[in-house]
Amino acid sequence: MNILVTGATGFIGTNLTRELRKEHNLFILGQFEGDPEKLDLPGYIMDDDINKLADYIKNNQIEGVIHLASLYLTVHTPEQIKDLVSSNVYFGTAVLEAASLAGSVKWFLNTGSIWQNYNVKGMEYNPVNLYAATKQAFIDMAKYYTDVFGIKFCTLKLCDTYGPNDTRRKIFKLFKDYSESGEVLKMSPGEQLIDLLYITDIVAGFTQLVKLLSEGAKLNPEYVLSSGRQIPLKELAALFIKVSDRKLNIEWGGLPYRKREVMIPWKGEVVPGWKAKISVEEGIQRFLR
Amino acid sequence: MNILVTGATGFIGTNLTRELRKEHNLFILGQFEGDPEKLDLPGYIMDDDINKLADYIKNNQIEGVIHLASLYLTVHTPEQIKDLVSSNVYFGTAVLEAASLAGSVKWFLNTGSIWQNYNVKGMEYNPVNLYAATKQAFIDMAKYYTDVFGIKFCTLKLCDTYGPNDTRRKIFKLFKDYSESGEVLKMSPGEQLIDLLYITDIVAGFTQLVKLLSEGAKLNPEYVLSSGRQIPLKELAALFIKVSDRKLNIEWGGLPYRKREVMIPWKGEVVPGWKAKISVEEGIQRFLR
Repeated sequence: MNILVTGATGFIGTNLTRELRKEHNLFILGQFEGDPEKLDLPGYIMDDDINKLADYIKNNQIEGVIHLASLYLTVHTPEQIKDLVSSNVYFGTAVLEAASLAGSVKWFLNTGSIWQNYNVKGMEYNPVNLYAATKQAFIDMAKYYTDVFGIKFCTLKLCDTYGPNDTRRKIFKLFKDYSESGEVLKMSPGEQLIDLLYITDIVAGFTQLVKLLSEGAKLNPEYVLSSGRQIPLKELAALFIKVSDRKLNIEWGGLPYRKREVMIPWKGEVVPGWKAKISVEEGIQRFLR
Repeated sequence: MNILVTGATGFIGTNLTRELRKEHNLFILGQFEGDPEKLDLPGYIMDDDINKLADYIKNNQIEGVIHLASLYLTVHTPEQIKDLVSSNVYFGTAVLEAASLAGSVKWFLNTGSIWQNYNVKGMEYNPVNLYAATKQAFIDMAKYYTDVFGIKFCTLKLCDTYGPNDTRRKIFKLFKDYSESGEVLKMSPGEQLIDLLYITDIVAGFTQLVKLLSEGAKLNPEYVLSSGRQIPLKELAALFIKVSDRKLNIEWGGLPYRKREVMIPWKGEVVPGWKAKISVEEGIQRFLR
């Protein structure tokens, strides 16, 4: 299959493309300046000309799109809203428009977030933050293309993700840095539950959904990738200390909870035929290796 | 009350502000270049600085926002998508961000379209076109501000609108122009039903909803302004001929139906305490006067 991937140079993107390229012809779509071929894959740099992108999609007979590109912001500033809308709403819409013009694209795998569901009970949309709101807004833009052009569209909502070579300032990166420096790490009271998924499990979830989409399986509009285990942040720190045999100097309650801190992560229906395999204990070991 | 109005220089905006200014202090917010004071009302020209707009809202103790500004496109081209997202998703989000920073705004009256519901059965979102999709996407963005900052948000979905001095190329404008020129007007087969609302009824619907919002009434997330009457386009032409005593040379079926032509307009719940008063016959007379 010929598949176009956005956000291929990110943490999930690099790991996913490494796996998917074994079986499929991948094409990289970037908004970035620079060379998409650093991934050693054919690539296209997006500009304002959607017709040109449509030609590229048509000429390469792209059948599926995996949309990972996203501007991720836990908390936004007023100055970032323009970029947030442009990256998370406009860019994906432009790709869908090009796909509809090209006519070759059969499916579009979108990436969402469990933060679209702050209220853990029920399926109702209730965004944790403005980032999550842009994720929902894009899904509504996409509905036009699925309704009018019949492009199959499925959103994969992600929980917290981690793995080796993750440069994002996520929890194990923090624990690692502070365990090395020995400095005091100020944290919230730490009672919030965390649903953490190791990168190989995430890649497996995406590849499984690509398989289902390309087979034309009857699918829900969305699925979630969840580890199935929700661990309090405090317990996660204890696990890190035990598995790594390092010391961590954490001042619990040294920071307040964030406004709209997610205390219990939302659980949705996971991708059919997929299950998380890597335990947090094993994940921490691999992360530190 | 101090009310901020976007889109005040448009067809609905000029008529609505003329009425509302009798009872309220209006402030005009524009994205346009030029002089908002042509309406003889205090105004603010939007730029990229949301903090500055927040100051303006705070300094003028704005309590409510009426958001009429919109880029309206029946059919879009790829080149217009950027503007569509910027005008219909980003701009309103920026106003809501400023409102949340200012802290004075209690309610936000948003303008939607019955085109958000191509499927006339049920309430489910199903956009007629990409314009309608941006209307839905903005509602998703707004949910963040209502959930986090408690700004009361209500969307008023409009059907087809008309009235004197409407420069938009809408149905009665077409009929008027072609009845004057005597040229042949090519139209679709004309079986589609039309729900048409005269401008004074629209203004009354907005003022009623402003009243309910400012009283803190318990409201639905959305209402619709509908005439309660759905007339086939062909019959509408006959009515125009009868009421105006003019001739119309229409070639029915000279054009095909538009892709996703709305054959039956969606009906939702109308604004409590409001009812359309002007019949189409009377509206046509007023329109031609």
